[in-house]
Amino acid sequence: MALVPASHPQVAVTLVLLLSVLGLAAGGKLLVVPVDGSHWLSMREVLDSLKEKGHEVVVVAPEVSLHIKPAKSFVMKMYPVPFTQEELDRDFHAFTQDTLEEGTFLERFVRIYQRFEKTSALFLSTCEHLLYNKELMRYLEESKFDAVFTDPVIPCGQIVAEHLSVPSVYFLRGIPCGLDFEATQCPNPPSYVPRVFTEHTDHMNFLQRVKNLVFEIPNLFLCNFFFQPYSKLASEFLQRDVTVLDLLSKASIWLLRLDFVLDYPRPLMPNIILIGGVNCAHKELPQEFEAIVNASGEHGIVVFSLGSMVSDIPMKKAREIADALGSVPQTVLWRYTGEVPSNLPKNVKLVKWLPQNDLLAHPKTRAFITHGGSHGVYEGICNAVPMVLMPLFGDQMDNAKRVESRGAGLTLNILEMTSEDMSNALKTVINDKKYKENIKRLSELHLDRPIHPLDLAVHWVEFVMRHKGAPHLRPAAHDLNWIQYHSLDVIAFLLVVVLLSLFISLKCCMFCCRRCCFKKGRTSKPTKSKSH
Amino acid sequence: MALVPASHPQVAVTLVLLLSVLGLAAGGKLLVVPVDGSHWLSMREVLDSLKEKGHEVVVVAPEVSLHIKPAKSFVMKMYPVPFTQEELDRDFHAFTQDTLEEGTFLERFVRIYQRFEKTSALFLSTCEHLLYNKELMRYLEESKFDAVFTDPVIPCGQIVAEHLSVPSVYFLRGIPCGLDFEATQCPNPPSYVPRVFTEHTDHMNFLQRVKNLVFEIPNLFLCNFFFQPYSKLASEFLQRDVTVLDLLSKASIWLLRLDFVLDYPRPLMPNIILIGGVNCAHKELPQEFEAIVNASGEHGIVVFSLGSMVSDIPMKKAREIADALGSVPQTVLWRYTGEVPSNLPKNVKLVKWLPQNDLLAHPKTRAFITHGGSHGVYEGICNAVPMVLMPLFGDQMDNAKRVESRGAGLTLNILEMTSEDMSNALKTVINDKKYKENIKRLSELHLDRPIHPLDLAVHWVEFVMRHKGAPHLRPAAHDLNWIQYHSLDVIAFLLVVVLLSLFISLKCCMFCCRRCCFKKGRTSKPTKSKSH
Repeated sequence: MALVPASHPQVAVTLVLLLSVLGLAAGGKLLVVPVDGSHWLSMREVLDSLKEKGHEVVVVAPEVSLHIKPAKSFVMKMYPVPFTQEELDRDFHAFTQDTLEEGTFLERFVRIYQRFEKTSALFLSTCEHLLYNKELMRYLEESKFDAVFTDPVIPCGQIVAEHLSVPSVYFLRGIPCGLDFEATQCPNPPSYVPRVFTEHTDHMNFLQRVKNLVFEIPNLFLCNFFFQPYSKLASEFLQRDVTVLDLLSKASIWLLRLDFVLDYPRPLMPNIILIGGVNCAHKELPQEFEAIVNASGEHGIVVFSLGSMVSDIPMKKAREIADALGSVPQTVLWRYTGEVPSNLPKNVKLVKWLPQNDLLAHPKTRAFITHGGSHGVYEGICNAVPMVLMPLFGDQMDNAKRVESRGAGLTLNILEMTSEDMSNALKTVINDKKYKENIKRLSELHLDRPIHPLDLAVHWVEFVMRHKGAPHLRPAAHDLNWIQYHSLDVIAFLLVVVLLSLFISLKCCMFCCRRCCFKKGRTSKPTKSKSH
Repeated sequence: MALVPASHPQVAVTLVLLLSVLGLAAGGKLLVVPVDGSHWLSMREVLDSLKEKGHEVVVVAPEVSLHIKPAKSFVMKMYPVPFTQEELDRDFHAFTQDTLEEGTFLERFVRIYQRFEKTSALFLSTCEHLLYNKELMRYLEESKFDAVFTDPVIPCGQIVAEHLSVPSVYFLRGIPCGLDFEATQCPNPPSYVPRVFTEHTDHMNFLQRVKNLVFEIPNLFLCNFFFQPYSKLASEFLQRDVTVLDLLSKASIWLLRLDFVLDYPRPLMPNIILIGGVNCAHKELPQEFEAIVNASGEHGIVVFSLGSMVSDIPMKKAREIADALGSVPQTVLWRYTGEVPSNLPKNVKLVKWLPQNDLLAHPKTRAFITHGGSHGVYEGICNAVPMVLMPLFGDQMDNAKRVESRGAGLTLNILEMTSEDMSNALKTVINDKKYKENIKRLSELHLDRPIHPLDLAVHWVEFVMRHKGAPHLRPAAHDLNWIQYHSLDVIAFLLVVVLLSLFISLKCCMFCCRRCCFKKGRTSKPTKSKSH
């Protein structure tokens, strides 16, 4: 056996040779079916890297979108949709305004539910217009892609992959109703894996564990509510009965934006690859921002953004926030496009856009006020900046809870908080050394990895392109039904065998006993009769 | 947000800075408690790499061992044991001879069981002599190690780690009775994860699933038989009640020599890192072997070894094998130290040792005859050489089944096979292109990885040294008992709530009904009385 350490370059050379034999060294052909919003922003970074590695990347996107715009690193194929840019912008603006508007729990629930219904209908209609765009579909069929790269939160990409018979790679944070666990056959014990929206940590008391289990029920409804229309659409389009679960379970690789410095350790499957922090790549800080940061003096800066979807807020709230920001000596860079609050303090600079990750990377940054979107939170961790979290919707509450449970930030309820609450929270995360120490520890653990998550993501997309999928990572659990998976049929069979054995043994014993008694009876009877 | 791809060197620089702050850039201090035999051979490669990276490596080993010998890459601390080298060699030789000797199933079982008992007693005694060697333990206590690196198949290393309060990293293929699943809290569904010794694949029919579940029972006994003495020893030594399961569940990282090109996809935990193929690093082929290979002509060579523990076999079997080897045109390199069979054909060269991995890597190698040890099998896969497998004991039967189920080799029962069986199998894997194609496909999948398993192993050992463990990867499941883990208490509570609600509802209904009836009764009664 060879016992001397690896000459790894040899392996690399073998690999390159191998790839050239496969005819793929020159680059593969990747179809991207993205999901709009922040989902797209981190996916685009992977596309840039794939392009750099010589692959041909084709993105299909609706003509009207929030963020998906043409770029040098990919070919963009657009398709018409039955709504205008103004309608889309209005819809999303209304969504965030509805979220920020005060009211009773029921009022807010109904308002957000209705808005969610409208937005869902928009996404579904977009998908329909992709699938039934004959010209575009013909082009896709003829293009002979090696793989489809998509975010399954909107399962449109997998319907296309299925139609084209091409393997798929997913890029996501997770599916709120837990369909990702089902589709990967990943065990998901409710005793220590907190469900989305519960705001639990992985250490739950009895009542929390009850709540966690009970939350499976609304999840079931949520899955059904959101994905049923796609099951119907897929069945019509593919001309056979199929559910979204069937479709998603076909994915070759799931690239999950998770890392256990933030998320709680839980079982994984071989085709789940963790790429949390994939979005933390740096570029240079633009000069105008560098100037602001340098002018901030010894107190440094605070970065404040509520994410790519929320850039203005109701005036009353904006004035409260402005008050709070005025109470700290730091310069605050606030991404805000709404009407300027009249009480805006001198230390606050409003900007229409800010290079969030690069600002967070600056050693003068003292704190990060964020809505708790997963991208922002990971940027906070990468750059070791303590956070004040003001979650609004989706997984943001859970993300905020995770940061807080790690002692790396404080959470505020943006609707209920006062100016003082915010001021106190901000001062605490800046001045209490504990927060900086905790986020530094998380950051060190997060950055100490054998390969950058962006390179890992690129590797697995390339892997699926090269090998036409990754069937060797597909667990046999996919071929079992629920009863078989849990061995219920085997347990029932063994129970029957054991009970039957017991019954037969018992019968045998009784039979023997009876025979003995009978013999005794027979032998004693004559004695008795003799005695008489 | 930063949207341009990573300048990864920046991350690396940050990391190095970070490490120098932690005072670890100059290298950590690692204590290695190895397990003898082939387990040691692949572990040594990781130690060589760790030494190259500037760490101080100390290996503690008994004065008498099979393979653990001093080397440049580590400091060796030896301790006396109450047996001689001759006794040890005789014991292991007898073990393999017993395995190869024919007889009825019961005879063989009793023989192997008794031998296993003797060998286990040897290992246990070795562990006792380490723990109670006061001078050595004092040296270990004073040395302030950053981590312990060990193979938990013999849990002695973890007892030392516990005593020194130092985090541990494990390096193993698996624990035959499945204790590794329990100790990592890794789900292990018997419906598709085949148990050791069953020789099942991951696709089982009903009766195989029954057998797979029933195999939990002997596994329980096996665990108890083997580990109970270590629990006793640990409790005495650490002066508190502790089981081997308690001890093993404290490991920071489990480096498992698995890869799903060979093993079947199954759930994993965050602290399980797969490093299958870690032992496939190449060095140059020694000149004498190069000469033999070059002289083999167009037919090339066959490599034949039954592993580091078996180097001779009973003469009758050796003659049968020699006959079979003479039937192929290839030159056969056979690692064999026993008496030369009189019928040894010209094409067979006997050698006392062979550079297995480097020979397998030679393009002229046509087949590999192996006992199916995990190291050999992975070397076969790395180098894409089809195999004839003759498993003897331990996990070898399962490994052989895995290779066969992937269509990359044929399995023979070494005790029952005839010369013709072996000749046919060898000719088939050489001449039937299917075997070469299948092993080539497996090899391509196996080698297409983002980082070499040896580098991955080194990274995680360093990680644990740098961060004093990896607590962020420890699932909360460790803090739950069996009932809590499976949510049985929650289910019982919910059942009681539902039944109670039903009962109360029923009672209310009955009460209402009765009242209604009663009222009716009362209203009808007077009517009746009036009518009278």
